[in-house]
Amino acid sequence: MSGKTVHDINTGDTASFAKTITEHDVYAFAGITGDFNPVHINEEYAKESMFGARIAHGILCAGLLSTVLGTHLPGPGAIYLSQSLSFRKPVFLGDTVKAEVEAVEIITDKNRVRFATRCYNQDGDIVAEGESLLMPRKA
Amino acid sequence: MSGKTVHDINTGDTASFAKTITEHDVYAFAGITGDFNPVHINEEYAKESMFGARIAHGILCAGLLSTVLGTHLPGPGAIYLSQSLSFRKPVFLGDTVKAEVEAVEIITDKNRVRFATRCYNQDGDIVAEGESLLMPRKA
Amino acid sequence: MSGKTVHDINTGDTASFAKTITEHDVYAFAGITGDFNPVHINEEYAKESMFGARIAHGILCAGLLSTVLGTHLPGPGAIYLSQSLSFRKPVFLGDTVKAEVEAVEIITDKNRVRFATRCYNQDGDIVAEGESLLMPRKA
Amino acid sequence: MSGKTVHDINTGDTASFAKTITEHDVYAFAGITGDFNPVHINEEYAKESMFGARIAHGILCAGLLSTVLGTHLPGPGAIYLSQSLSFRKPVFLGDTVKAEVEAVEIITDKNRVRFATRCYNQDGDIVAEGESLLMPRKA
Repeated sequence: MSGKTVHDINTGDTASFAKTITEHDVYAFAGITGDFNPVHINEEYAKESMFGARIAHGILCAGLLSTVLGTHLPGPGAIYLSQSLSFRKPVFLGDTVKAEVEAVEIITDKNRVRFATRCYNQDGDIVAEGESLLMPRKA
Repeated sequence: MSGKTVHDINTGDTASFAKTITEHDVYAFAGITGDFNPVHINEEYAKESMFGARIAHGILCAGLLSTVLGTHLPGPGAIYLSQSLSFRKPVFLGDTVKAEVEAVEIITDKNRVRFATRCYNQDGDIVAEGESLLMPRKA
Repeated sequence: MSGKTVHDINTGDTASFAKTITEHDVYAFAGITGDFNPVHINEEYAKESMFGARIAHGILCAGLLSTVLGTHLPGPGAIYLSQSLSFRKPVFLGDTVKAEVEAVEIITDKNRVRFATRCYNQDGDIVAEGESLLMPRKA
Repeated sequence: MSGKTVHDINTGDTASFAKTITEHDVYAFAGITGDFNPVHINEEYAKESMFGARIAHGILCAGLLSTVLGTHLPGPGAIYLSQSLSFRKPVFLGDTVKAEVEAVEIITDKNRVRFATRCYNQDGDIVAEGESLLMPRKA
């Protein structure tokens, strides 16, 4: 249950996690956060919207990135310092989202790693992208 | 179910949503995202960590901000373009988190509003802060 | 809320419980156990697998057997000593699984009952089968 | 997302996953399976039972073993053939369960691996143990 240290990570290292985002996920996420924006949970409203159907919460993509960062790279023991995210395309119920992180800067003396973070749908389109900064566990 | 347009929003406008973050929330969030980092779901591990107890996923704060943005200010019809978040302090199970957004820039010609976003715990400490950019619904 | 005693049960007695296994069940089960094997939660992966689509966790069948044993035969007050299970066929999302238990040995002096346990899909195919041993509640 | 093949596994190889089992887990598990045995979800009943408090479903331990087998060792692509489980001790709400699998027999010509499977609580007591048989993914 120990993640990588800053010495175990090289720029270009990647890790990912993929999941088909279902109605269950969107409804449970709404239930936790209280984000009952009708575009997520009201099909009648959503089909009249610019999206044409209910879409997943954008922050769900951030959650999948957190999964990769917290359990794979760097993994347990890391401190999550920041995350930025630009939402590029909607994620529809039934889309399969792959969250991928790539180490882009290793700041050894400050024990920090900067990651490029991207979420793709099943067509390979980027649905969200940004950056995160983490402090991997101490050696 | 119609949110505000760019003309309805002034800099300094704020909205907020607060929730006591429970074990249920953290476990369900792990269950949706797959983020089973032991610091969130393993008390034996967490009590030996620097936090001393299980903590909530940082992205849960972003979820509460999404609630405010998507249901209050600007509200339904807005397009969520981006969110940044710096995690300042851990959120423990049982903490009450208030997510607050404040309009800081109105870009009328591009139909965008920039918000300062902050999450506080019950002691008034900032646990997370950042910015978001939204396109309110068209007039 | 009192189950049967060893004296209330005869060999050949059966009980069953059936449920249509939905995407909700599979996703929630993954969320509790942490079993995010892509064959359960990633449709893109699953359709390339030998199964051709996402399948339910095999242990979910064991959960339905536990329902029958713990609430019907022998019912409340029984101690669950052991369960074996061979997985014969995949259970797909939308399949209706009937979990059936049949008392096959009554060990009165030791207060134990051995059950043959089988799970069927809607076509009558056995998807899982095994045995369980229980101590019914004391008289 | 590719698990190990039979050639990647040696006897003695182990993997594990640990989680604090909460009220949320037990209630959600009851909700999926229908196992509303009062010893799991009725505190008034449970405190008069031999356990003195609500206990987790024994099959939840099997679920954690499935997590290890399906996501770590052998991991994705493996076919789960069978699982046996003897329940040794109750798991109480709040207990931290570690599910551990150990390869004990490699049957290369039949592409099967037999695992000893054990679940421990935070005191190191075995709460459940048994065996599982898997077909790792083909090379």
